Amino acid sequence: MNIGIVLAGGLILADPASPEVVPHGTTVISGNRLVLVNAPIHSQPPSDLVIDCSGCLIMPGLVNAHTHAAMSLLRGIADDLPLDEWLNKYIFPSEAKHVAPDFVYLGTKLSAAEMALGGITTFADGYFYMEEAARASIEVGLRAVIAQGILDVPVPDAPLPGSWRERARAFLAACPADDLITPALFCHSPYLCSPETFQGAYEMARAAHSPLFSHVSETAREVQEIKSRYGVSPVEHLRGLGILGEAFVAIHGVHLSESEMDLLAESGTGVVHCPESNMKLSSGAADLRGLQSRGVTIALGTDGAASNNNLDLFEEMRSASLMAKLVTGDPEALDARTAIRMATLDGARVLGLDAQIGSIELGKLGDLIVVDLDRLHLTPVYDPLSHLVYAAKGSDVRHVIVNGKLVVHDRCILTVDERKLKNAVHAKADEIAEDLGITAYGVGTGDD
Amino acid sequence: MNIGIVLAGGLILADPASPEVVPHGTTVISGNRLVLVNAPIHSQPPSDLVIDCSGCLIMPGLVNAHTHAAMSLLRGIADDLPLDEWLNKYIFPSEAKHVAPDFVYLGTKLSAAEMALGGITTFADGYFYMEEAARASIEVGLRAVIAQGILDVPVPDAPLPGSWRERARAFLAACPADDLITPALFCHSPYLCSPETFQGAYEMARAAHSPLFSHVSETAREVQEIKSRYGVSPVEHLRGLGILGEAFVAIHGVHLSESEMDLLAESGTGVVHCPESNMKLSSGAADLRGLQSRGVTIALGTDGAASNNNLDLFEEMRSASLMAKLVTGDPEALDARTAIRMATLDGARVLGLDAQIGSIELGKLGDLIVVDLDRLHLTPVYDPLSHLVYAAKGSDVRHVIVNGKLVVHDRCILTVDERKLKNAVHAKADEIAEDLGITAYGVGTGDD
Repeated sequence: MNIGIVLAGGLILADPASPEVVPHGTTVISGNRLVLVNAPIHSQPPSDLVIDCSGCLIMPGLVNAHTHAAMSLLRGIADDLPLDEWLNKYIFPSEAKHVAPDFVYLGTKLSAAEMALGGITTFADGYFYMEEAARASIEVGLRAVIAQGILDVPVPDAPLPGSWRERARAFLAACPADDLITPALFCHSPYLCSPETFQGAYEMARAAHSPLFSHVSETAREVQEIKSRYGVSPVEHLRGLGILGEAFVAIHGVHLSESEMDLLAESGTGVVHCPESNMKLSSGAADLRGLQSRGVTIALGTDGAASNNNLDLFEEMRSASLMAKLVTGDPEALDARTAIRMATLDGARVLGLDAQIGSIELGKLGDLIVVDLDRLHLTPVYDPLSHLVYAAKGSDVRHVIVNGKLVVHDRCILTVDERKLKNAVHAKADEIAEDLGITAYGVGTGDD
Repeated sequence: MNIGIVLAGGLILADPASPEVVPHGTTVISGNRLVLVNAPIHSQPPSDLVIDCSGCLIMPGLVNAHTHAAMSLLRGIADDLPLDEWLNKYIFPSEAKHVAPDFVYLGTKLSAAEMALGGITTFADGYFYMEEAARASIEVGLRAVIAQGILDVPVPDAPLPGSWRERARAFLAACPADDLITPALFCHSPYLCSPETFQGAYEMARAAHSPLFSHVSETAREVQEIKSRYGVSPVEHLRGLGILGEAFVAIHGVHLSESEMDLLAESGTGVVHCPESNMKLSSGAADLRGLQSRGVTIALGTDGAASNNNLDLFEEMRSASLMAKLVTGDPEALDARTAIRMATLDGARVLGLDAQIGSIELGKLGDLIVVDLDRLHLTPVYDPLSHLVYAAKGSDVRHVIVNGKLVVHDRCILTVDERKLKNAVHAKADEIAEDLGITAYGVGTGDD
């Protein structure tokens, strides 16, 4: 029998649906599947690689259910600005000038590597030239839902009116068929996609058995815009288009009425909560309790690194919980166990992948991470689950396994030449900065 | 000439009052003072130790202006609970049973080591048996304002009514005279210290040229309590006692009226903002803009690790900014540069130490940190100051120098035997857990 990876010792959190930490014996991944989960230690089989997990917690890999990975190339290019100025003076001009296949490949590779090092094993991405995002993600070795962006306004890979159809079709045809990749479509928003575009994209996604994503009700302003345009609020508008349901994912959902939350619950539509982005852009605070009490499944997302500005889902769990406690005035709001479920199993569920990932379960895919608990800032340990949310960082992740393959070992990424990648990013950043009349620092390239 | 440490290359942020990042040549610390700041590279003198800072940013050490360091021994013992249950069922019983000199020494040592690794070079601490806190802090090599806690209710080191006087006097006499230590007093709060206690403590602190700290208006409930007891709000109450001014530090200041903010500004009283603690305990959001517009100096604090649950001031800068942007609805609120000033120079100012630390300036003390910018999650670099607040972590700190001595080198703490310290903490945690009928995990000690 060809055994792949054996994990031995430490603690394990196997199922985020009933989160409990227990001492860990042996877990074995063969091929890309879990073939033994927390068996008694004496059953340890011969194997290619044994990872000693003592001092560590084994848990399902984190699911980042919303990002724009390539935008890491614009990380920190402008902050502390009104949304309009941020978008119109910095983000849009840079995107218009620079977003091209090489930009998407490079930025996605940078983000995927950062996410891997921080314990994210699956991410859902929405941007342009998404074949390139798929290629970068496969190279890094992460699982990804790769969604081609669709807008009615001209965008880099579909500059002509209506050309989104051609682009989306080309993407679905060209997207690499790979175990790691789920192709998908991403309508930007009800205010930048017409009803016809939404319905066309939804049909195309359905035909490809792919999910459709959209930003929904991120800001109060866009809700007003949709109401004045269509006479109904955004979720009602989407319901009217026949789009709600398990094949649709609503990103943000910051400004939702009671009846909109009812519609999301009834239709089984999942929501992705992005607390740090919502705070940083002053968008507002989603009513998590309203959604949870109705049974809406809520995932967690970092959003893109231009509005976060890192892709650390441990931090996002913490921010989700702290923000909920602040805005509700209730310290019991969004407890650690709920935050962990959102960042793992519920993230998988929203992406339609929960039959395969999100928990460490016999027969599921081998996506898991090993978190080092033996660190001063995590000492002592009364409750490892509390530590994951309230004290840990992405940098506490020691090993990362995706689809049965070791991607990060002892905090080093095995699939990427870090120096080469950083140098390529610095070179691209120089071009972007020059066009904006600002400076980029070539840190580590001998240029700082 | 006996040269101590030479820093060479990289970038430098020298003065948080006018934050600007420039290329760095050579900075030299001799004894405990800065004797050369960002000189041209060719002037590099012979030295005991040259630290290559290329790929890094040199900046003033961070100032954590409020914590209860020893409480790291209770980190994660209980979370997601109403304040009353958290305090009365877990924190108070554990403190009553276990707080003793060895508890304070051990917990402070754990926290000081964690803070050092995260780039904090100075902290202000308030707890019990504070000679032990001073001893631990000196051993780790951090600068600290060590404030003896004072309450009218029985506490571990002053169990009899009125015995706080004797305790405070004994502490001031016994506190080690050390370059690194400023002794101080800490009245818990206007609701747990009578007017007589406050005035007595203030006089004692004044006679010792020491600052006096107090929690002020952390929760809406305590404001109501003070109003019903004294007919005025907490800051008015303290003003009436003659306590406001530069020798007094108000911690939290979450629930302040306009006129209270005026009083703080007129009197030159500094405030310590603890955003993560305020969020986690659902205390509320301080009106930073109201304080800033009046010219009140605001420092940043992590609060104790039982209510945070880590002591990472990079995260605290980020949370301060994100929380301000959320509650004001203004993405320009609390920009990165302001957050950095709060965490360095303004922290030093609130603690009365700004003539000596808080910026990298000729003649000031040698307290500085070297932050590694050459990491994937900090790539590319358009604005290093944005990265410090919106993307960096404590784990990005590479070297830490306090009072001219190297405390952290290449992410390793030089002054502490980490394994020995962690084992001692796990043993103490076992005792604490047993008394509460819960479990502690001996992570890394072979017991997990």
